[in-house]
Amino acid sequence: MNSVHRGLVTLLFAAVVTSGERVSAQADQPVDDWEPASTNQPGSDFPKVNSEGRVMFRIKAPLAKSVSCSFRDGGEFKQDEEGVWTGYTRPLDEGFHYYTINIDGAEVPDPGSKYFFGAMRWGSGVEVPAHDQDSYAVERVPHGQLREVLFYSDSTKATRRAFVYTPPEYEEHPEKRYPVLYLQHGWGENEYGWGAQGHANLIMDNLIAEGKANPFIIVMTYGMTNEVRFGGLSRFSIEPFETVLVDELVPYIDATFRSLTDQPNRAMAGLSMGGMETRLITLRNLDKFSHIGLFSGGSISIDDVENTEGFQASVKLVFVSYGGRELDRGGARRGGDPGKDVEALQQAGVNAVFYASPDTAHEWQSWRRSLREFAPLLFRHQDAPRE
Amino acid sequence: MNSVHRGLVTLLFAAVVTSGERVSAQADQPVDDWEPASTNQPGSDFPKVNSEGRVMFRIKAPLAKSVSCSFRDGGEFKQDEEGVWTGYTRPLDEGFHYYTINIDGAEVPDPGSKYFFGAMRWGSGVEVPAHDQDSYAVERVPHGQLREVLFYSDSTKATRRAFVYTPPEYEEHPEKRYPVLYLQHGWGENEYGWGAQGHANLIMDNLIAEGKANPFIIVMTYGMTNEVRFGGLSRFSIEPFETVLVDELVPYIDATFRSLTDQPNRAMAGLSMGGMETRLITLRNLDKFSHIGLFSGGSISIDDVENTEGFQASVKLVFVSYGGRELDRGGARRGGDPGKDVEALQQAGVNAVFYASPDTAHEWQSWRRSLREFAPLLFRHQDAPRE
Repeated sequence: MNSVHRGLVTLLFAAVVTSGERVSAQADQPVDDWEPASTNQPGSDFPKVNSEGRVMFRIKAPLAKSVSCSFRDGGEFKQDEEGVWTGYTRPLDEGFHYYTINIDGAEVPDPGSKYFFGAMRWGSGVEVPAHDQDSYAVERVPHGQLREVLFYSDSTKATRRAFVYTPPEYEEHPEKRYPVLYLQHGWGENEYGWGAQGHANLIMDNLIAEGKANPFIIVMTYGMTNEVRFGGLSRFSIEPFETVLVDELVPYIDATFRSLTDQPNRAMAGLSMGGMETRLITLRNLDKFSHIGLFSGGSISIDDVENTEGFQASVKLVFVSYGGRELDRGGARRGGDPGKDVEALQQAGVNAVFYASPDTAHEWQSWRRSLREFAPLLFRHQDAPRE
Repeated sequence: MNSVHRGLVTLLFAAVVTSGERVSAQADQPVDDWEPASTNQPGSDFPKVNSEGRVMFRIKAPLAKSVSCSFRDGGEFKQDEEGVWTGYTRPLDEGFHYYTINIDGAEVPDPGSKYFFGAMRWGSGVEVPAHDQDSYAVERVPHGQLREVLFYSDSTKATRRAFVYTPPEYEEHPEKRYPVLYLQHGWGENEYGWGAQGHANLIMDNLIAEGKANPFIIVMTYGMTNEVRFGGLSRFSIEPFETVLVDELVPYIDATFRSLTDQPNRAMAGLSMGGMETRLITLRNLDKFSHIGLFSGGSISIDDVENTEGFQASVKLVFVSYGGRELDRGGARRGGDPGKDVEALQQAGVNAVFYASPDTAHEWQSWRRSLREFAPLLFRHQDAPRE
């Protein structure tokens, strides 16, 4: 394991236990402009979010001795006369955060929120409105489809699920073929993440409507094929997932969808562990992938380029991104400096791009923005797609 | 409101508060062959189900005074020395049941289960294995796609979600067009229900693989357009949803998918409230719908036939079904006898079919079976679809 890989593993461990608290001075009294979170269950007033990015929880538990939430400094919950507990956090970063509620020692989902898959379970999440939330809002633009597909995997002897985003025009051009991006979630997440938390489909719909991205297909599947357990990433082996993705899913997609099947028209990207997977799989399969995106998931060094035969001729784009707070806190630099890695690639003539998401950490807001910045750079070599 | 309608409203009220307990003698000691439920979160051992159909819950809540579940006669939960609470139900009917856990007065989802939308919220569900579960199992057969689509509704000034099932062969025959079934969920449920709880896609995949059903498209959208609140069904008005479905969704589907757009190739069905919606919408739009399915959601009487112009010439199939326990308990007969209604239709020359699901109540197992029985009867008038 090289230093980049080792640094990344350290980072991934750290990521799971941090949440998105802003490191900022906090007012004594929260601003009283609370609104129900957009991630709430239909009709649920709580949790609420205010303009500072604080989240207020309310749980009815008349007989409980204690109620709390998993946000660090989540505030002390207080019970009123009717047995309703209320508490609020300090200001959180913009974007999406996972959390749990604790009632008398029981870790449970908040009945007020919708549920998302993270940390290896379906549980609560809350959205703190971001200044750039329009980029993943449901707008009045043509919408693509997010398709649940089932494919048989001989290597795992199982029928596996993937989600496939097809761009808005896909149904209108029955003869046209499209490039494909394989897009991976992080550790403890699953194939639902990029749609449910990441809004990948809405980000693409909006970019395409604005003429900023070429339409392409996105494929999202479960990347924990090797049954990685928390703490086990240092023993990570890519082969089981590589087999599912490269030998089974890619042929299924190319047989089922109107995909362009040549190397220049196939990309892979991923966040956190999914970035690590992307790096390992693309470097071993440069005959199949031409565009590489690593979101909070390591970088590609000049050593990688020099040690990988045909890299310069094969790779059309290397995109590396991090949340700005990851860089501030130094975690992203433990295995080398990803920004400096990108500069070295650029100097060596590689089409490499570095992006830092302002004021966000190892969380979905960084990755939504990463996709928004990455997608317009993809498949620009052919603005008139071939058949 | 006629008597059928009034009886149905009574039934729908009753349905929400009953659950699927078997009315049977119960052994003193449960059979010790517990297995994790198929509806569990990945890696969760609890809840477990045994061969009697009992469900055992386990919740860690060290400081709690009381823990219970929402199943009637759910058993008294007992706490062990490590603060883990365990309880089990009496034998439940085969199939899927919604439930909640109560911890010191807080109604919360079970952290061990996946979450499903019912009773107006995402919450826990548990699957009791059924003797006919192969009909909705993931088999090694060609699979269709379950597509999330977004369409703009001018009448509600909102972008709305639907799920669209396309049959396995849909991508292989780019020139072929398919009939469409509009399929509705029940009160308090949403457009996810027929996929997540109903396994409509898997039921169709399996029927098609066995040659028992013609391939067709299924469209599932949210049917609570009129903001029906519990207790408000007697003031139910069909117009808002009828507008969304007939004037907005049908044109969207016909513009986006390779659907057959003539009346003989369009069906509608629904469960419970969705059956009521189906009855009202189809009888008012017989120029658009030819096949009608009512699952635990009322029936069509001979009076309906006589009072609806063109019924005999337009309607190719009336399918009425109930859970056997609904019939046993008399609830389904309050507004008339649905089986007798079907007999009267048959005598009048209508192609009408009645089905009773053995030993199940107003629950998803009845509706999965209803779809399994209904689908093979659809669109048989044209085994060589027209363009």
